[in-house]
Amino acid sequence: MAKPLILVCNDDGITSRGIRKLVNVVKNLGEVVVVAPDSPQSGMGHAITVGDTLRLTKNDLFGDIEAYECSGTPADCIKLAKHYVLKGKKIDLIVSGVNHGSNSSISVLYSGTMSAAIEGAIEGVPSIGFSLCDFDPSADMDHVDNYIEKVVTEALKNGLPKGIALNVNFPVKQKEPIKGIKMCRQANANWEEDFDERKDPYGRKYFWMVGNFVNHDKGEDNDEWALANNYVSIVPCQFDMTAHHAIPHLNEAWDI
Amino acid sequence: MAKPLILVCNDDGITSRGIRKLVNVVKNLGEVVVVAPDSPQSGMGHAITVGDTLRLTKNDLFGDIEAYECSGTPADCIKLAKHYVLKGKKIDLIVSGVNHGSNSSISVLYSGTMSAAIEGAIEGVPSIGFSLCDFDPSADMDHVDNYIEKVVTEALKNGLPKGIALNVNFPVKQKEPIKGIKMCRQANANWEEDFDERKDPYGRKYFWMVGNFVNHDKGEDNDEWALANNYVSIVPCQFDMTAHHAIPHLNEAWDI
Repeated sequence: MAKPLILVCNDDGITSRGIRKLVNVVKNLGEVVVVAPDSPQSGMGHAITVGDTLRLTKNDLFGDIEAYECSGTPADCIKLAKHYVLKGKKIDLIVSGVNHGSNSSISVLYSGTMSAAIEGAIEGVPSIGFSLCDFDPSADMDHVDNYIEKVVTEALKNGLPKGIALNVNFPVKQKEPIKGIKMCRQANANWEEDFDERKDPYGRKYFWMVGNFVNHDKGEDNDEWALANNYVSIVPCQFDMTAHHAIPHLNEAWDI
Repeated sequence: MAKPLILVCNDDGITSRGIRKLVNVVKNLGEVVVVAPDSPQSGMGHAITVGDTLRLTKNDLFGDIEAYECSGTPADCIKLAKHYVLKGKKIDLIVSGVNHGSNSSISVLYSGTMSAAIEGAIEGVPSIGFSLCDFDPSADMDHVDNYIEKVVTEALKNGLPKGIALNVNFPVKQKEPIKGIKMCRQANANWEEDFDERKDPYGRKYFWMVGNFVNHDKGEDNDEWALANNYVSIVPCQFDMTAHHAIPHLNEAWDI
């Protein structure tokens, strides 16, 4: 039987440790092709390159594994991989990450890692984004290997519901091993920003955005709770943004 | 009674015709402050600036109206406006646009215009993105004035459900006047890309991404149907990406 074809992407760029981790785990589970950004793309959300050109360059960073670096965003990488690099082939699974930093709760919207996975779901391919809740680029991530393997194996065996991408987050490494996996909803949380105002050497003002994460959610069925309690969180995500419940309300309340 | 405070943003940049159109309509409905990107940000999705600095410069493009151009993304503009420019003030409404080009159906995910509105909703402010289904930067948009005024007036009067941003799209100008407004769900459609491969003057390969819009939706309750039938479409959008229906399914189907 042919090995499943697994496309690997990320948003920290093709040289990051996280994507090496992911490739090293999934290369035992299928035939792997890597198409990833040539530079860090954190916080790119679901950006795509319009009105500008794209570059795609083959490289040998992963030895025998076919790999390309792309000048575009994570979503661009998925589009180029599907419609150019792997044109005509059936991609069995797209995996993105491992991101250096959490993409839980509201961060899914800002996440380049998850935009690659959601783009995959839009294109009809089962897709998973993996993130580690540790921003340190040299963070210990050996505790996640078994869980990546487990999630990828289940996805290859059972597939994913149509139009669904999984947002998988791993807790920071602790003394105790991870307790298990929880299927979760996205926690009700947001970032409240401060702006650190500074002067450049020429006397002109500039800002650093400083995010403060605020969790409003008291539930135990959400990703923030799972991660705080040393579980892997999995949130199934959809790309239909419609607030269906609001349509009858607005038709009633508004005079249109 | 104090006038409502209306924050205006967009993604085509502060010099575009669309934002002038929007300012010209809403300045009659409240006190207006503009914070918009200093350059085009189309297709930026929900990108934010992390790991880099931001600039914010006051300008006089709108005469007496307080206006700033920002080096960041549309979502950055909203964050800077709320937490720096208008810190401590209650923003009654955020409006974004008028975008030169459709943001209906799946394009909501790629849209910088809608990322400003969705960021507003995340921050707890009633927010609306406006887009015209015409990419021509000099497109006729006088047929939308009354509809912007109508939607903004209703939003100021009745508010919006918590956590909801409206995605408002206007049909291309036709001989017949617009038929009315429809509350819609996001159509099931997507972009299928081709890549136009070229050589630069130095013999190196590059690509233009060429999107082909494919509408799979046969329903009459979605935004594509409304726009094709000369209605204004309004899709209420939420930022909870959870596919709630998939959680019990995955708990059942997966051995975790």
